[in-house]
Amino acid sequence: MKLSESHLYQEIHSQPAVLENLFDAEREHIQSIGAALQQRRVTNVVIAARGTSDNAGRYAQYLLGAVNRLVVGLATPSLFSIYQRPPAFHDALVIGISQSGSSPDIVSVVAEGSQQGATTLAITNEPASPLAQAAQYVIPLHAGQEQSVAATKTYTTQLMALALLSASLAGDASMFATLQHVPRYIGRVLQMNDAIAHAAERYRYMRVCVVIGRGYNYATAFETALKLKELTYVLAEPYSSADFMHGPVALVEEAFPTIVIAPSGALQDEMRGFIHTLRERGAEVIVVSDAPELVALARVGLKLPVTAPEWVSPLVSIVPGQLLAMHLANVRDYDVDRPRGLRKVTETH
Amino acid sequence: MKLSESHLYQEIHSQPAVLENLFDAEREHIQSIGAALQQRRVTNVVIAARGTSDNAGRYAQYLLGAVNRLVVGLATPSLFSIYQRPPAFHDALVIGISQSGSSPDIVSVVAEGSQQGATTLAITNEPASPLAQAAQYVIPLHAGQEQSVAATKTYTTQLMALALLSASLAGDASMFATLQHVPRYIGRVLQMNDAIAHAAERYRYMRVCVVIGRGYNYATAFETALKLKELTYVLAEPYSSADFMHGPVALVEEAFPTIVIAPSGALQDEMRGFIHTLRERGAEVIVVSDAPELVALARVGLKLPVTAPEWVSPLVSIVPGQLLAMHLANVRDYDVDRPRGLRKVTETH
Repeated sequence: MKLSESHLYQEIHSQPAVLENLFDAEREHIQSIGAALQQRRVTNVVIAARGTSDNAGRYAQYLLGAVNRLVVGLATPSLFSIYQRPPAFHDALVIGISQSGSSPDIVSVVAEGSQQGATTLAITNEPASPLAQAAQYVIPLHAGQEQSVAATKTYTTQLMALALLSASLAGDASMFATLQHVPRYIGRVLQMNDAIAHAAERYRYMRVCVVIGRGYNYATAFETALKLKELTYVLAEPYSSADFMHGPVALVEEAFPTIVIAPSGALQDEMRGFIHTLRERGAEVIVVSDAPELVALARVGLKLPVTAPEWVSPLVSIVPGQLLAMHLANVRDYDVDRPRGLRKVTETH
Repeated sequence: MKLSESHLYQEIHSQPAVLENLFDAEREHIQSIGAALQQRRVTNVVIAARGTSDNAGRYAQYLLGAVNRLVVGLATPSLFSIYQRPPAFHDALVIGISQSGSSPDIVSVVAEGSQQGATTLAITNEPASPLAQAAQYVIPLHAGQEQSVAATKTYTTQLMALALLSASLAGDASMFATLQHVPRYIGRVLQMNDAIAHAAERYRYMRVCVVIGRGYNYATAFETALKLKELTYVLAEPYSSADFMHGPVALVEEAFPTIVIAPSGALQDEMRGFIHTLRERGAEVIVVSDAPELVALARVGLKLPVTAPEWVSPLVSIVPGQLLAMHLANVRDYDVDRPRGLRKVTETH
């Protein structure tokens, strides 16, 4: 089968269209959810999610923190499902994020929130799922069925749903205007497809790598690493540049591959210094950025053809990682739609 | 130099003594902090930390969640230091954990908390540090100077400080009684030293591994992996068993090394099933556990000679990981006190 006929290829390339769907179908609904949440004076947020959806939760930590000044924590589902000692939510907003809406441990967090009288929200591609049924509010992703095991379009639609929620809570019309441009931005980034297919050849025999991002793009580092692990079986470990300096930098030796997610923004100075540190240690540095000065420092530069405001950059900067993981799997003759040992829905307790 | 003369060896083996120091010196002080926090009706906790201290924060998420029913989140320091958009803490308790107390980004979180009028607590080995000065309450670790770059005794004392805090908030005398036994438990686990030195030989040429733990011992998986990265330069990636099933399990192929931290407790059934899954895929399974039935399933079993209640098991179950990382570094002829490219105090912003 040709790669371009795979579900994964088609789902990655469908992202501009499905994101536009979501924006058009849900903007008003999410604004009404935002208005209801405002009335309840939510001050902190707990997010329950696993895998790719957990990376969407990482984006929400920064977005709802910086824009909406909310304290956002990621839930520890085993407190609910294994230890049966759930925390007291008080006035928290509990958000469950899941493509399938059917992982029992995630459902158990949201169900406990509802039972305690907390405000609960499900973000899912399956609006009839147990997760949706357990929550007070539901944002459906409108992504269409995702057939590839590796999640791509459901990740970017989860980010869009969270960004629409943040804009609604902030009541900021300019944020909606920016979000409306995102499908077009992603359309332009998808034009990197052939260049990334070419770049992937170089990593045919890569066994390990680290993926670095910070701030808003901490999520992008995690999601890029997860796609590499799922699709190419490379041990790709994600880090914030700050955490990386607290120990793991010892790993870096000559030729050690490091993927640095560094769109322009508040972190640009830090990322420049970080890339220099990696180069001094002889690392092979791959940079994903729209900033020419950062791309110029890379051994392999993946230059984003658009500059997005930093708070929406994770929607754009994940796309090269999706493409790289897909093409690297293809270069290695792996089945991109059905990675070994994985199923689409993972039921953990 | 003989390994037993290294700072690292001596610091690992000093843990029973320094933990006893901490317990005796701080129990009453921490009880008074707990009483003051009770009066302030804290409902949620934000923890700022990096590296090893962040792993102590992971323990606190489960302990303060399960025992004290608090919602505990890990802070995103860049919101404070880089974006300068800190969340509003309201009635949160903000805890900064740092051996040196001098990483600027961690100090900035606690300083912001104090400025907002939130309750703030520093847990540090340096009671005169900037972190201690920024916080309302300070718990000193009494660990003595830590000279090895890799943190060991400051990790277990951080866990002890957090456990004493949890016991104080719960007002539970039986928890104090259990904690008083911990130094003796660790003394017994240190008798595994020679057996672990022998086991380390087998991994002389290991390049990558994953370390699995869940619930209370999610922290132990992270800290074991961090010691391996810092001291042996093995790309050791930590996971909860549940997260691992949501994608990364695709990595596992014949002979893939997986270290499973599985003390007896609420997760024993799940861990048994998980080990079977790994074995079916041909993984090399290393088990750290007091449960004979789980150790028996391992290719290499590291049997804990003591059974601790699950909530204190992270203090005990990290010790084999510390010993394994030290002996593996020694087997590889690395300097255990001064890993390449690391300094004791990392100043991230």
